[in-house]
Amino acid sequence: MDYKFSDKVSKLQASAIREILKFTSDPEVISFAAGNPAPEAFPKERIAEISAELLRDDPILALQYSVTEGYTPLRDLLKDWMTEKGCFHKEFDELIITSGGQQANELACKVLLNEGDTLLVESPSFIGSLNAFRSYNVHLKGIEMEDDGINIEKLENALKTEKNIKLLYVIPNFQNPTGKTMSFAKRKAVYELACKYDFIILEDDPYGELRFEGENVPNIKSLDTEGRVIYSSTFSKIISSGFRTGYCSAPAPIIQKMVVCKQVADVHSNMWAQVVSHRFMSTVDREAHFKKLRAIYKEKCDLMCGYIDNEFSKKIRYTKPQGGLFVWCDLPESCDMNEFCRQAVQQYKVAVVPGNSFSIEDGEVSHSFRLNYSTPTNEQIKKGMDILARMTREMLD
Amino acid sequence: MDYKFSDKVSKLQASAIREILKFTSDPEVISFAAGNPAPEAFPKERIAEISAELLRDDPILALQYSVTEGYTPLRDLLKDWMTEKGCFHKEFDELIITSGGQQANELACKVLLNEGDTLLVESPSFIGSLNAFRSYNVHLKGIEMEDDGINIEKLENALKTEKNIKLLYVIPNFQNPTGKTMSFAKRKAVYELACKYDFIILEDDPYGELRFEGENVPNIKSLDTEGRVIYSSTFSKIISSGFRTGYCSAPAPIIQKMVVCKQVADVHSNMWAQVVSHRFMSTVDREAHFKKLRAIYKEKCDLMCGYIDNEFSKKIRYTKPQGGLFVWCDLPESCDMNEFCRQAVQQYKVAVVPGNSFSIEDGEVSHSFRLNYSTPTNEQIKKGMDILARMTREMLD
Repeated sequence: MDYKFSDKVSKLQASAIREILKFTSDPEVISFAAGNPAPEAFPKERIAEISAELLRDDPILALQYSVTEGYTPLRDLLKDWMTEKGCFHKEFDELIITSGGQQANELACKVLLNEGDTLLVESPSFIGSLNAFRSYNVHLKGIEMEDDGINIEKLENALKTEKNIKLLYVIPNFQNPTGKTMSFAKRKAVYELACKYDFIILEDDPYGELRFEGENVPNIKSLDTEGRVIYSSTFSKIISSGFRTGYCSAPAPIIQKMVVCKQVADVHSNMWAQVVSHRFMSTVDREAHFKKLRAIYKEKCDLMCGYIDNEFSKKIRYTKPQGGLFVWCDLPESCDMNEFCRQAVQQYKVAVVPGNSFSIEDGEVSHSFRLNYSTPTNEQIKKGMDILARMTREMLD
Repeated sequence: MDYKFSDKVSKLQASAIREILKFTSDPEVISFAAGNPAPEAFPKERIAEISAELLRDDPILALQYSVTEGYTPLRDLLKDWMTEKGCFHKEFDELIITSGGQQANELACKVLLNEGDTLLVESPSFIGSLNAFRSYNVHLKGIEMEDDGINIEKLENALKTEKNIKLLYVIPNFQNPTGKTMSFAKRKAVYELACKYDFIILEDDPYGELRFEGENVPNIKSLDTEGRVIYSSTFSKIISSGFRTGYCSAPAPIIQKMVVCKQVADVHSNMWAQVVSHRFMSTVDREAHFKKLRAIYKEKCDLMCGYIDNEFSKKIRYTKPQGGLFVWCDLPESCDMNEFCRQAVQQYKVAVVPGNSFSIEDGEVSHSFRLNYSTPTNEQIKKGMDILARMTREMLD
């Protein structure tokens, strides 16, 4: 039979990263291509304890249907925590539990945009969100990323020339894929443009707690006086990614529509994970837990960046991340990036992600590749980075 | 701020049942309005055992990211089980794990239909699915339900007159809300019409294992020689609804598109629940487990229907269900159904769901209400049905 698919999904492709990940099933391949948290970062003993108590004392809470908005004690805890962080404004915000941060971003697009409306995104940006937006047939317009975040001039230019702009999607902290952080000045400028040009900002912050260097920068949501910012985050990087438990704070009318759309998407998120997350967050010494995670990622990041600083060809440019999971490397323009990535995995058995996987438009040229330091072991980082270093010197010097 | 929402969600309302459920937070109200499995039906001790083993021996499997398609051992188990049931055709089908049966139904609509396309549904039908379809701005056309399922003549009539029909949504076993089962003759007729008029059937089967009376009727999917049937089901009623673990078998090209759309929706379903479901299903004596569930629901159904048979006004018509969770009662046309339901909950403190909650079109007149027997205790069924019986006699006789 010849199947006819809807216009919105007929051209939609699975994440290109999956093509790379195919090679990584070869046990000889060292993968810097994934984006998984370090296995040692999961608080597995405490999760096992909490789960055992829950399933012994209150199993029906974990096993029965619940409300779409999310487990009330978890929502209340998050409202308090987000208020402390400036990311929940009691006067006008509400909060919903989502099935991972991914769902929050998809729901925001579904709720606000019609097919053909324009959604502005950082270029490059997170493939998962880009594909979520594409699956609603919206028009994506990429705005260049600089070392301190989105190019404000080009953003304003797009606001003046593009039509039907409803939403700007940004990852201000340790962006995926570039690892770059938006400066406070730019966050203010972005918010001011939202007020001036009347659009909504979707601020995705999955890595916010993973700052291991530099000063904390207030979230854009903390500047939100007009109710223009949707803030989404997740427990994926601080408790467990297998939980698929995220959350989203936004003006109440937006959350109300997201609740209706979540109800038809999956009724509610897995209850066991919601209750375990609540009990973990309300009993753990949060700062001590985050400090432990930051130490894990700082060590891995330092290890990886040491190789770039000392062993890579000097023709490779990069910005050292202050947190998160990723490093973004720029090859010289003379170098064929796709060929570099292909050789790395096929000949040298080291997998990296070609930069054009994160491109906004088809056929855009990228000279960059993404490295991930959270998933590999330190031994794998040493071995893989040593190979990549030699490769860069041989190809570029 | 005045928020502008997308056309597809601006008119979308939360399930009307939620309005009824508000009253049920009053502890004095006996609720026949929910659709939750009986708490005693959850295999909670076995789930606790499996979970403890998993989090002790293999925690990272439960806590780390995984693939969108679902946990491979669970998919393999389901492919085998569905093959036995005739609901998986190795030659052309694939299978995906979804976040509850709800997600399968939403993905099927997203993948196949453009805004304005027509989706045929039984009338009345399950509000959750209807709203999922509405959230993609598709045109819903209801086809009358009879005691043995959808009216075939009216279905063919619609196929001749409606334009751009892509999908027919049916719940052949113990339909929600009517509790009715489609006869085998009608299942064959529906499939033949799909071949003749070239559309896809979405067969939703959340209650299939809960047959406590009568002979099993083969699923429509078992008749599928041309690759025209999407079959979706869930562990919600046989293991746990809080898990949000469902599954869907369909021709491989459709599953491929559903995988892409699920990836952008929630990346993958909660891993702990997937692994626990797999270990439960592969170690339990399935038939003994299902037999136990069927006995629970048969007892509750018999108890409830005994009151309708013996105590209700004879002016109330109903069809005794052979499985599932719901009984559908028709009031005489002279009776104002909404007023009946309002009085039941406000004056007599018994909550039932007004039939028009399941209507396809706005303003459709319904003379029915839905009763649920799975959620209340036997004591609550006795007390609540005694009250409703008196009410029907007083109002109708």
